Amino acid sequence: MRFTSEASSDGVREQLFALGEIPGVLWTPTGAAGPRPLILMGHGGGQHKKAPGIVARARRFVAECGFAVAAVDVPGHGDRPNDEEYDRIATENRARVDAGEELAPLIAGFQALVARQTVPEWRAVLDAVQDLDHVGAGPVGYWGVSLGCGLGVPFVAAESRVRAAVLGLGGALVSAEAAARITVPVEFLVQWDDERVPRAQSLALFDALASAEKTLHANPGKHGEIPAFELDSTLRFFARHLG
Amino acid sequence: MRFTSEASSDGVREQLFALGEIPGVLWTPTGAAGPRPLILMGHGGGQHKKAPGIVARARRFVAECGFAVAAVDVPGHGDRPNDEEYDRIATENRARVDAGEELAPLIAGFQALVARQTVPEWRAVLDAVQDLDHVGAGPVGYWGVSLGCGLGVPFVAAESRVRAAVLGLGGALVSAEAAARITVPVEFLVQWDDERVPRAQSLALFDALASAEKTLHANPGKHGEIPAFELDSTLRFFARHLG
Repeated sequence: MRFTSEASSDGVREQLFALGEIPGVLWTPTGAAGPRPLILMGHGGGQHKKAPGIVARARRFVAECGFAVAAVDVPGHGDRPNDEEYDRIATENRARVDAGEELAPLIAGFQALVARQTVPEWRAVLDAVQDLDHVGAGPVGYWGVSLGCGLGVPFVAAESRVRAAVLGLGGALVSAEAAARITVPVEFLVQWDDERVPRAQSLALFDALASAEKTLHANPGKHGEIPAFELDSTLRFFARHLG
Repeated sequence: MRFTSEASSDGVREQLFALGEIPGVLWTPTGAAGPRPLILMGHGGGQHKKAPGIVARARRFVAECGFAVAAVDVPGHGDRPNDEEYDRIATENRARVDAGEELAPLIAGFQALVARQTVPEWRAVLDAVQDLDHVGAGPVGYWGVSLGCGLGVPFVAAESRVRAAVLGLGGALVSAEAAARITVPVEFLVQWDDERVPRAQSLALFDALASAEKTLHANPGKHGEIPAFELDSTLRFFARHLG
């Protein structure tokens, strides 16, 4: 693990790093020492580890809860090179949608493919980040919606260090089987008028989670329009389960 | 409006009252003076104005938010005499369910009938309670699930003083038409394994609400098993919209 830059503002320290070929960012409270809860965040499709929605949430997790937060670029995103195979599939999928095919099953197939790469990558990131003195081996949470849900469900199912997860904007097509292996508390976000994920698919993914404690929060609006007050709820959810 | 008893504990003053034939209870902060937000609470079927679930929530609204809270007995409940017509219909409905009829439409018809009486009753209670110096004409919220939702939806739709409502455990059969006239923020509670309200009916009632801000919170469990953490969310919801 190699740190490439560092900055600090408003009590939050931000360190860019590379773990092999994976570019990442770690946020911790300025001056933090010793173990603390860690939240791994998965960004959305076409976004990256420092997308505004990731940074805004990460800074609040650090500033208000004292947590550590890590995010990495998904293959083909952010500071990573284009992946020829993924690019080819994405181009094919766009053509198939233009030709009238349904979007959701295509997204599902693509995310399942990428998850086979990201699950081991993210586990390696957890290993490396938890080795740092100012992070340590505390409880781990996961936050990810949309692509971050499609990749997050198989990750949370596979990784026993994760004790609680916020997921959503994703459907059962991509990950119902993995969801049935998730038993930790989940807060699951649904946009009631999601133009990308059919409502029934969202409800079916929530239904598939094996967690005894799971809460579905549905709000009006399109895929990208999660209301601001849900972040307050997310903070309390993680504080309750990891704090 | 006639007060019949009064007590105070842990900073919460409890006054029993009668408004004509309607027995009620008013909770306010001990020593309160001047106007404040008021929450009207509607109890569940077979319960009453001082059912444990009502009292526990009311005391927290008062103690943590400084609100006033009022609850009254629904006809045929609590300190009210049996209502012969309602009793007759309830008996008939039990026989129809025993004979294999679906429960939900029978509940819906019954609640629609009772609401024609409770909507004007509750408006009269609001008038009387808001005339008190220690309540005053502040913003009003409504909380009610199950029967409290079936009676609450037409009440919230009719009463413009209500600025925010927590509803749930109710289906579209009883009140979709009234729900389409509700435009204030709503937090809507669904029990995912509700044995009394079909899931599709719950989702359809949420869908029918015309509110620009509405949030559905669904949790695993049966009709009576709303998890405790939802009360924390309810408190924040009312504080945000009435505080």
